[in-house]
Amino acid sequence: MRIFGIDPGSECTGYGCVDTDGSRCRLVVCGAIVVPARIPFSDKLTRVYDALATQLARHRPEWVAVEDVFFARNARSALKLGHVRGVALLAASKAGLPVAEYTPAEVKRAVVGYGRADKRQVQRMVTLLLELEAAPSPYDVSDALAVAVCHAHTVTSTPTPAHPAGRGATIRSWRQYRPQG
Amino acid sequence: MRIFGIDPGSECTGYGCVDTDGSRCRLVVCGAIVVPARIPFSDKLTRVYDALATQLARHRPEWVAVEDVFFARNARSALKLGHVRGVALLAASKAGLPVAEYTPAEVKRAVVGYGRADKRQVQRMVTLLLELEAAPSPYDVSDALAVAVCHAHTVTSTPTPAHPAGRGATIRSWRQYRPQG
Repeated sequence: MRIFGIDPGSECTGYGCVDTDGSRCRLVVCGAIVVPARIPFSDKLTRVYDALATQLARHRPEWVAVEDVFFARNARSALKLGHVRGVALLAASKAGLPVAEYTPAEVKRAVVGYGRADKRQVQRMVTLLLELEAAPSPYDVSDALAVAVCHAHTVTSTPTPAHPAGRGATIRSWRQYRPQG
Repeated sequence: MRIFGIDPGSECTGYGCVDTDGSRCRLVVCGAIVVPARIPFSDKLTRVYDALATQLARHRPEWVAVEDVFFARNARSALKLGHVRGVALLAASKAGLPVAEYTPAEVKRAVVGYGRADKRQVQRMVTLLLELEAAPSPYDVSDALAVAVCHAHTVTSTPTPAHPAGRGATIRSWRQYRPQG
């Protein structure tokens, strides 16, 4: 199963696509969409939308996973982030793909093992889980991969009518890893 | 000049298109995009986007005017509203149209005459200004027409290099109207 993770941000939107066979995940592609600061906001949204639509058409995932955000610093920054998240969800919907949403705490629990992990820990765990030679950077990219891995974990370990993929992977957690490191 | 106003909302998005000749505004079309409550949020965004894209292609405005929102009840509702606003701006950008943004207070000042007017006053003034037989309803529609009228007022009364339309209309304000009513 191929899963495309998105971490929308008002300045940089990360994306990361992984394949999972039910027991482990493998990197397909990842990257960051950085838009020029001095163009109109509506043009920034178009750039993000077009870049995501291009990646989705190219890599043909079966799922899109997006980080859900319950809290933002304030209503103004939430509104701005919402714009980018809106076009990300639209790109998924226009590609005919189902969207799974996870809170940051859920992503961290799935990938690192506890919900209050920091971005550096998420980045290191994603690097380990995907057996990458270098850490995906910036954090927007590692966070996007983390939400994809989180969804891989969910669909392969929760056999439900909606997710018939069956039992499978147990993602190694950061907690499990640290004593061995 | 033809201007397409949008009032994005998480449950109902109003739109209203007007023509202005520099002295007065005339209604072209208006309506509300109401999405079913029980479909996935990403599908709701697609419906809003498609409906706006259809209207923009059909009526070919030269400007899109959208209400800017600085404050929402809380970050959660701001985030949700941001999604809808994001796809509205994307629809404008994809149609190759410039976007003007106005705060609610600016819209109210332009249409009613003072920045703290309520929605009912905006609705009545829009009805008068556009010489409509019935008040546009719900408020999402009258608000969308109001932001279009606000932009008409701005571009026709502020001759700048960016807005070369020249001097023109002075929109009658609610304050001016009330003593006569």
